Amino acid sequence: MSAPVLDVAAGHVTLVGGGPGAWDLITLRGLRALEAADIILTDHLGPTDELSRLCDLTDKTVIDVSKLPYGRQVAQEETNRLLVEHARAGRRVVRLKGGDPYVFGRGHEELLACSAAGVSCEVVPGVTSAISVPGAAGIPVTQRGVVHSFTVVSGHLPPGHPDSLVDWAALARAGGTISVIMGVRNVAAITATLVDAGLDPHTPAAVIQEGTTTGQRSFRCTLGTLATTMAGNRIGSPAVYVIGDVAAL
Amino acid sequence: MSAPVLDVAAGHVTLVGGGPGAWDLITLRGLRALEAADIILTDHLGPTDELSRLCDLTDKTVIDVSKLPYGRQVAQEETNRLLVEHARAGRRVVRLKGGDPYVFGRGHEELLACSAAGVSCEVVPGVTSAISVPGAAGIPVTQRGVVHSFTVVSGHLPPGHPDSLVDWAALARAGGTISVIMGVRNVAAITATLVDAGLDPHTPAAVIQEGTTTGQRSFRCTLGTLATTMAGNRIGSPAVYVIGDVAAL
Repeated sequence: MSAPVLDVAAGHVTLVGGGPGAWDLITLRGLRALEAADIILTDHLGPTDELSRLCDLTDKTVIDVSKLPYGRQVAQEETNRLLVEHARAGRRVVRLKGGDPYVFGRGHEELLACSAAGVSCEVVPGVTSAISVPGAAGIPVTQRGVVHSFTVVSGHLPPGHPDSLVDWAALARAGGTISVIMGVRNVAAITATLVDAGLDPHTPAAVIQEGTTTGQRSFRCTLGTLATTMAGNRIGSPAVYVIGDVAAL
Repeated sequence: MSAPVLDVAAGHVTLVGGGPGAWDLITLRGLRALEAADIILTDHLGPTDELSRLCDLTDKTVIDVSKLPYGRQVAQEETNRLLVEHARAGRRVVRLKGGDPYVFGRGHEELLACSAAGVSCEVVPGVTSAISVPGAAGIPVTQRGVVHSFTVVSGHLPPGHPDSLVDWAALARAGGTISVIMGVRNVAAITATLVDAGLDPHTPAAVIQEGTTTGQRSFRCTLGTLATTMAGNRIGSPAVYVIGDVAAL
């Protein structure tokens, strides 16, 4: 038999939210995209360690395009370029991301890069870690009679950073649950800013590392003790912390 | 053959987030719980119409415990009672919910009811409509360089209602994306409150009805025209509306 001939017209990109970490928290639609893929570009987040449990990797190419926190980075432009290049070559490309592609996942940037290049691109949502990781530790982000809103915020930039678009002081006053992802390094600055803005340091808080995986660790504390709790327990990325009355439920 | 004997000790409850509506946006873990269930208690939200596409319903009992918006209601206490009663009778009970069990889903209440009754209960997260429904209309709730936070809020109670726990004025000042679910009836009051609190009426907005399903309809507008856009297009539940610069992307 000759090698399969790729159909250039069939090349396309699917951005798949892989969920918070446990391999079986991907959606059926996401799984089917993986099963049909010729090439998979993965992150370090999401169920990438268990890709082989999700689908038969025979005849699939797997490329790691991780952005490690404060570590090795594959430039976004390079990821975009790979998506377009492989799709144009007729391949079915899956970009597997942690959580949901639209929650700090640069999903829209990758979608726009594909569109600009005339490459068909579909987005498959995923279970976001901002909700499911607290949930895995028994903490609901909402609870009737306790809180009717929650805010998901990236802690990647510290408060006051020139590129930060987060009004932490307003968040402190809004009264809903606050769920912070990518905020391990900046937890001391973030919690101090919230307290300075008037949020009670006795507000319940919790941090969960590697939620939904076998490595999950969680600690309950308060806004005022969150930074020392995380430092004392050597909490590293990926971790989610939650601030609000639900953290005491 | 005699009828199967239920193992009382094996009875348990699994709260499953069914996702935003499309049947294939449930997680693998949720699907497996459905496949293993003896009895399924469903909502009107989530992929209940397509339950038979998800699993073989032969020998399963399906009970509708919907809370229709402003319509027929199964009291939460009755749902809790059914969960406990069937689990105590040795059945594998799945409570299938729309979206995620912890996003205004009363998941924690049902978990507590099971715990109080000594019934084992597991929660399987789902894809929340607050993120995935805007996404299905091409709107990312976050976008690098545009917004680094988003707030998910229940619009079930109008601003100023004595039971409302939402500080709409603080939300207006927080600057992040606002995603409102269960807010069709109160959209006029909610948008007026946000404008009164200083949010620019020209802020981009969008509404999506029955997102991710074949009945999906979406309309882009502004904060100031959202209520009239929804009324003029006869938007009904379930619908999600998004307010913020991402709605113009």
